[in-house]
Amino acid sequence: MELKPYLADRKYLVESALDRLLPAADREPRALTGAMRYSLLIGGKRLRPILTLACCEAVGGALERAMNFACAMECVHTYSLIHDDLPAMDNDDLRRGHPTCHRQYGEATAILAGDALLTHAFELAAKPVTGVLPEARLELIGELAMAAGTYGMVGGQMLDIQGEKRPLELVQLQNIHIHKTGALIRVACLAGARLGGGTPDQVKHLKRYGEALGLAFQITDDILDEVGDTKTLGKATGVDRALDKATYPKLMGLAQAREAAENLMQEATRCLTEFGPQADPLRALAQYVIARTH
Amino acid sequence: MELKPYLADRKYLVESALDRLLPAADREPRALTGAMRYSLLIGGKRLRPILTLACCEAVGGALERAMNFACAMECVHTYSLIHDDLPAMDNDDLRRGHPTCHRQYGEATAILAGDALLTHAFELAAKPVTGVLPEARLELIGELAMAAGTYGMVGGQMLDIQGEKRPLELVQLQNIHIHKTGALIRVACLAGARLGGGTPDQVKHLKRYGEALGLAFQITDDILDEVGDTKTLGKATGVDRALDKATYPKLMGLAQAREAAENLMQEATRCLTEFGPQADPLRALAQYVIARTH
Repeated sequence: MELKPYLADRKYLVESALDRLLPAADREPRALTGAMRYSLLIGGKRLRPILTLACCEAVGGALERAMNFACAMECVHTYSLIHDDLPAMDNDDLRRGHPTCHRQYGEATAILAGDALLTHAFELAAKPVTGVLPEARLELIGELAMAAGTYGMVGGQMLDIQGEKRPLELVQLQNIHIHKTGALIRVACLAGARLGGGTPDQVKHLKRYGEALGLAFQITDDILDEVGDTKTLGKATGVDRALDKATYPKLMGLAQAREAAENLMQEATRCLTEFGPQADPLRALAQYVIARTH
Repeated sequence: MELKPYLADRKYLVESALDRLLPAADREPRALTGAMRYSLLIGGKRLRPILTLACCEAVGGALERAMNFACAMECVHTYSLIHDDLPAMDNDDLRRGHPTCHRQYGEATAILAGDALLTHAFELAAKPVTGVLPEARLELIGELAMAAGTYGMVGGQMLDIQGEKRPLELVQLQNIHIHKTGALIRVACLAGARLGGGTPDQVKHLKRYGEALGLAFQITDDILDEVGDTKTLGKATGVDRALDKATYPKLMGLAQAREAAENLMQEATRCLTEFGPQADPLRALAQYVIARTH
């Protein structure tokens, strides 16, 4: 299958839905709604919402069933980027080729825009969805909160900050990524599968797919920071190296990091064995995550 | 009825539940769980969770039905205090008689602890409750998100920050407070009434009670900032005046501000007309909000 037009189409669907589901730009307080919309709509791959939609499709569900939750995933992801970029955290000036939220709107507004996006994610996740039982939606809200909070993304960011101050071993680096990026990608897949009406076995396989893909994605992100360039990525590269930060290429060597990503990609693909052609986008996505580092 | 022992008992119940429902102190990353527990457990009146429990009781519901949501309310309130205290916001050093979260744990950890508490609130709100329909819990998660986000508390904080830069009229000050503090207090009451199994009429009355009480509470907070002292309040006083910030006493005069709070208290009490003695704690609470400024 052709991944590029598929991704372009799904990105368009997600961005149209986000535009519709976010507080309107003329809604007061405009600095806040402006900052929320700015950070969400300036771009991004939309990987997490696209995974949610693709897992929904893979189990034969209609896209609409997963759209609110898909947008919630992107709200959580974007809020985490806004807060991670803050002066007290990574102090980044550039994100997706544009000034970071606090550079554009000021620090107080950026903190609040992140808070509002996180809150909005749960508002979206709680919206009624035809054909999905309320119990299932409640369970997914619990899963999203677990994946985004202390035991997931926020905990991972904390471990990451602590890790900057001392040399890390590979197992510690993996632990950071399993929490910081892995948990959210996993729940993106899990939610799509459940909202689409997947069987418990299908849900289990797609959750495992998400785990493998999430780790592969982080390894390739580290590789791109080594070998990519600012223009292609829309953000500064070599940052991790300059900060003497632990990365997979640094701890394993570049070739071994590529091999690890390749192995994870194959594992992700194996999780899809029992799925038909409806899972082709997921198969192509696993290939794509690797391909971008070559 | 005796309010003091009632409040002490409910405070104890809420704090025991919070201690149990928060990530354990020995759970990694300890800096994060430590900061979350520090800010939540160093004290506070627990007004919002106590309102949730009292409204649940007022409609004849067992306390346990509202406890998770009550704790979620306190998580949201505490996260908002942590973020409001940050250097980029109000830059406060003292909260509840202790160093603010960022003074104790550093700015990055404080931002993350706030994020984690907000996320944890939704995890708690999504937990199963015996006797409460999943649909009702989902609706309340939506209400909580609306009250806490752009259209509620976060939006109100944004308006508050913007208001610091220019002279405010009374109607603008009220608009800030309706959003910044009123929305959350309203949803605390609404949720308690719904979780307790209240009729639509009872829910409506208790929601209106919460609105009146919330505004009365904010006016008396402003009055306390004028007339209270640091030792009693556990935080700096005269801060608003020193910052030349708009307050009710400043815009209305102290006597008129007291009268406005008194009127709101009477309105709150009128909302309870159709309730029996089970609503006595709510009646006493309305009195208490006023009494603390005399």
